[in-house]
Amino acid sequence: MSKQRTIRLDCGKSTSVMYVLGTELSIDLYTSSPPGSTSFEVRFSPGTKCSISSHGSVLSDQPKLWPIDRRTFLLVTVDIPSRDVNDKKITVTYFGKDATKPIDKMMLALTAVYISLDVDADRDGKIEKNNPNKASWSWGPDGHGAILLVNCDRDNLSASKPDNEDLAVNSFNDLKDMSRIILRTEGPESLTSGYKLHLSISASDNDKVNVFYHKHTSITSVLGPKKLSFAVDYAVGSSDYDFYVEALKFPDAGINPFVTINLNLLEPMTIGEAPIFTDRIVFRIAPWIMTPNTQAPLEVFVCRMFSDPRSPSSAGNEDFLREFQAFVQKARCKLTICPQHVNRGDRWIQDEIEFGYTEAPYKYLPVVLDSPRNRGLQDFPYQQILGIDFGHVTQNTSDVSSLDSFGNLEVSPPVTVNGKDYPFGRIIIGNAFPTTYGGRKMTKVVREFLHAQKVQSPIELYSDWLAVGHVDEFLSFVPAPDRKGFRLLLTCPDACLRLFTKLQQEGHGELKMFEGVSPNTIKINEILEDKKIVEDNAFVQECVNWNRDILKRELGLDEEDIIDIPGLFFMKSGHAKAYFPDMVNMIVLDKYLGIPKPFGPLINKKCPLESAVRSLLEPLGLHCYFIDDFSSYHLMLGEVHCGSNVRRKPFPLKWWNLKK
Amino acid sequence: MSKQRTIRLDCGKSTSVMYVLGTELSIDLYTSSPPGSTSFEVRFSPGTKCSISSHGSVLSDQPKLWPIDRRTFLLVTVDIPSRDVNDKKITVTYFGKDATKPIDKMMLALTAVYISLDVDADRDGKIEKNNPNKASWSWGPDGHGAILLVNCDRDNLSASKPDNEDLAVNSFNDLKDMSRIILRTEGPESLTSGYKLHLSISASDNDKVNVFYHKHTSITSVLGPKKLSFAVDYAVGSSDYDFYVEALKFPDAGINPFVTINLNLLEPMTIGEAPIFTDRIVFRIAPWIMTPNTQAPLEVFVCRMFSDPRSPSSAGNEDFLREFQAFVQKARCKLTICPQHVNRGDRWIQDEIEFGYTEAPYKYLPVVLDSPRNRGLQDFPYQQILGIDFGHVTQNTSDVSSLDSFGNLEVSPPVTVNGKDYPFGRIIIGNAFPTTYGGRKMTKVVREFLHAQKVQSPIELYSDWLAVGHVDEFLSFVPAPDRKGFRLLLTCPDACLRLFTKLQQEGHGELKMFEGVSPNTIKINEILEDKKIVEDNAFVQECVNWNRDILKRELGLDEEDIIDIPGLFFMKSGHAKAYFPDMVNMIVLDKYLGIPKPFGPLINKKCPLESAVRSLLEPLGLHCYFIDDFSSYHLMLGEVHCGSNVRRKPFPLKWWNLKK
Repeated sequence: MSKQRTIRLDCGKSTSVMYVLGTELSIDLYTSSPPGSTSFEVRFSPGTKCSISSHGSVLSDQPKLWPIDRRTFLLVTVDIPSRDVNDKKITVTYFGKDATKPIDKMMLALTAVYISLDVDADRDGKIEKNNPNKASWSWGPDGHGAILLVNCDRDNLSASKPDNEDLAVNSFNDLKDMSRIILRTEGPESLTSGYKLHLSISASDNDKVNVFYHKHTSITSVLGPKKLSFAVDYAVGSSDYDFYVEALKFPDAGINPFVTINLNLLEPMTIGEAPIFTDRIVFRIAPWIMTPNTQAPLEVFVCRMFSDPRSPSSAGNEDFLREFQAFVQKARCKLTICPQHVNRGDRWIQDEIEFGYTEAPYKYLPVVLDSPRNRGLQDFPYQQILGIDFGHVTQNTSDVSSLDSFGNLEVSPPVTVNGKDYPFGRIIIGNAFPTTYGGRKMTKVVREFLHAQKVQSPIELYSDWLAVGHVDEFLSFVPAPDRKGFRLLLTCPDACLRLFTKLQQEGHGELKMFEGVSPNTIKINEILEDKKIVEDNAFVQECVNWNRDILKRELGLDEEDIIDIPGLFFMKSGHAKAYFPDMVNMIVLDKYLGIPKPFGPLINKKCPLESAVRSLLEPLGLHCYFIDDFSSYHLMLGEVHCGSNVRRKPFPLKWWNLKK
Repeated sequence: MSKQRTIRLDCGKSTSVMYVLGTELSIDLYTSSPPGSTSFEVRFSPGTKCSISSHGSVLSDQPKLWPIDRRTFLLVTVDIPSRDVNDKKITVTYFGKDATKPIDKMMLALTAVYISLDVDADRDGKIEKNNPNKASWSWGPDGHGAILLVNCDRDNLSASKPDNEDLAVNSFNDLKDMSRIILRTEGPESLTSGYKLHLSISASDNDKVNVFYHKHTSITSVLGPKKLSFAVDYAVGSSDYDFYVEALKFPDAGINPFVTINLNLLEPMTIGEAPIFTDRIVFRIAPWIMTPNTQAPLEVFVCRMFSDPRSPSSAGNEDFLREFQAFVQKARCKLTICPQHVNRGDRWIQDEIEFGYTEAPYKYLPVVLDSPRNRGLQDFPYQQILGIDFGHVTQNTSDVSSLDSFGNLEVSPPVTVNGKDYPFGRIIIGNAFPTTYGGRKMTKVVREFLHAQKVQSPIELYSDWLAVGHVDEFLSFVPAPDRKGFRLLLTCPDACLRLFTKLQQEGHGELKMFEGVSPNTIKINEILEDKKIVEDNAFVQECVNWNRDILKRELGLDEEDIIDIPGLFFMKSGHAKAYFPDMVNMIVLDKYLGIPKPFGPLINKKCPLESAVRSLLEPLGLHCYFIDDFSSYHLMLGEVHCGSNVRRKPFPLKWWNLKK
């Protein structure tokens, strides 16, 4: 794309214009020529290159007469910035038939400047000079284009809002969350009179970005909401102007991920000003990324609950906490306990938040996605997690159901599906049945947000068959040394009933479940003879199988990648609840699995349900810890996974290196 | 992507399921096996293919004992549709250590059907059988994917609304505007009890499409606004079910151009129904396409105006009409005159409408785009143009300015820009200056509509410098036999002033403009001595030059592709108006140009402005007709182009063959 600019000159006058290095001026010598003129001569200052469009080659210092016709354009370029305003001169003199007597002449005085708006377009953390790819964006290791973080942490702890909701730079730390851009100019000590340098953004970008100008010791917001353009004071000679840019919003349904910043050189016109040169940089706003169970854990979260004698449905979890703490220690992981006055009686810390991160070449930032569910833990993420270098994002809506809890938001390990790579895995959420109109779905604003992040293309499963309705009630992922590096665990009523039938045939039918943990013990024989339970679980198995087929197809899994974990359910008011602690609802810390203790019958003090799970998972090098969550979680329709949360290491792969 | 489905069987029971040809059933033989079983045997009806997942090869008719372990899955396929419900039987018998005594068995009864939802996915006008590409869409001659027309004409002339606003099929003609789809099934005389065939669309598509079911002699709307699914009554044996689909809306900012129609086979579950097989077709809604001046004209439109003695500003156009009619006859074109009672005193027929078309392999449909400007001609397009096989589309908004008139909406001839082809040209619209906040712009809804059509990627110019503010006031395109097949004409004050100076030097300075047409004649000398005019036109030239640079860049033009047409302007209240009839505002009918008569000075009865234009355009084989629009249009700030409109031939190239 030629950066050519048409300018007009008047005979008998001297015109003064600014010229930007790398562009070309085109002057119509015919239309401006005085009547009667048949030829012309061009004289120009050193450092100026002139050519005639119909002639092609560069004019020499030695002036020469050229014939003039309708196609005669003078093309001008300059290679070196001016030292003084108007220091490059060009004179065109017109002649008629008598080649010794000039008829008229026109003069052009040029001020040449170098202007470049620069950014890290090759993603190496350095701001190169005038990268030819800075105005576009592409994916992959051979891709290019700058990256912008949503500055959603709170570097000033005394501030009431995260950094993307203020228009200030709070600290040196805050600057580090921003992408630096440099406006580089080279030229004389001032611009030609009336010319201006303007930085601008389009109206459609104005709520997505904030640009700060760093001059001497002050930092001022110059572009952003309601500020679409900023006049840069041109500084003497060769200068670098520093700007810092933060994104204000993650990509979303109505928020396209690209932000363009323009640098215009404005020329005064009779009315208004014309941008005679535009330089442009394009950013892509970094997405929010989830971390699957196969990423190493960094920190585990759980709530402390005191029992309330007045509210027997709100059991304490002191015993659970003791076991859980010991388990987390095995995995050598940091444990953070959210106290009762913060959780306000809400133990479901899995449901209130999802830990993830965002990343640019200049910064890695963990970011908590805050569910719109908003129960007792509502303020916890904003008040306790959001902080220095820890970001926060949420989608507020009052249109929430149980399916908006983030036990219903998981992510698979990296997969390849029919040749398409998902090196960051795929997000998994649960919804109503696809052919059902009605039924519960994850709220639109959260689903749209997840889809808009692009790097972990979501899969929508059917989870509305469950009373609580979360995908973590029937699936989990564990690391594995072989195959695809993981196994998908699915809850499996058939496997459970088969195991119970085997126990019956081996003469253990009179053994009881729930001994020592509940007054409502029940014999294996009683379970197997209960037609409703068998029918309920045939339905549950159909629901799980339906999801299994989708997961196989969308994650590219073989049967060998799936492990069936015995589980049993019962239906109430048309929805399924776990009959005994739902073992698939586990917490995964590297090779350490914290599994809800199922309280099956004991044969030689051993629970055959636990043994079955051990025999399935231990061959993969995994360590199974069965944790009693019976009264503290299970009876309230959740298990270990629902009551905990894990912050994990980010992927080593950078998202912009994704091949799309 | 394997279309595998996991099903569960119970020991001691017979399970009856439907199977769709082309899919595979996967049965977990381990989890369902009775305790103590170590091996199994499979027997199956002819026409059924069974294999063991861990074994691979197809089982033979001769039953054989297979060992059982955790990875044992039975995979089943069928090649031929069933004649009767449940006519394919599979029995799995389990054995323990004693291989002669079966422990238990489970039975599967299959009903095999062929199901395919078919459409013209290869765009040849025929509906092929089960096209493997029917569920996706791609551009180009090697592309694929079905196409859907917006049924925006009115085939029933007594109806009050266009066809896309009713939910009825008005006539056989109306059906021809729709894309036919066929649901093909082959199988027994009924489906297995409880199974259903459902056609469905997603909620996000529901306002974009209407699907009619054609059965026997009745045609009923079955899917569309508020109708997301439709149960198809399964017919005996091999059947074709006919459906017809119309799009209701053109692609737009919030309207993605794709429409998906699903065919589900639903299986009854304990609660609800599961789609066990989904077939899918994808349409792209055809865009609205404009036709440039290089396309042959089919019909010319103009308004008849009577003079109103009480309103001298509203002159009649009888004399103009006579000249115009003669000109259109030269071009052998049909002329339609919009009478006064229809135009209601609004002569600017260029501004109210833009003729274009939409197209699918099954239909070509001219479509008028109706401007939201809505003056006297407001009802004309809806009442007079909309009709049988003539569609109508509009974007209603009250946020309109003069820039929303379609004299401000043009399209270039086909161009190639830096290797990128635009075989349908590029749309050109005028706006405020890009760096101006404030100023007039074409209204957002129309701009978004134009961008969303995708095939004629719009260019936005600067036209707000003009009082009326339309791009047709400074540019036009004419066909040419050489180079790119056309020339861009730009109005050029410098060329005009140069011509006048030449006249002055030749001794014609005392000759007058406007003689015989206006009492306000003026001498050439007076014009050249008027400093304000010279200054005003220097500004206008800068504005045109600014647009010239954009047009060169965005259309890939060289100077040789541009012709400067002399023109002169004057500034009033900060905006430019034509000083004499603006010759670039011409109507182009093949090689015949209807040009506003400039009323320049006469030398030997010849106008040098006309001669200049002739000498520029006649060498291209063009015929110039200068039409007097002085009192009938020019004095009201418009010219010939503003007062006329042309419907043109569509492009021979089909838009879906565009290479993207």
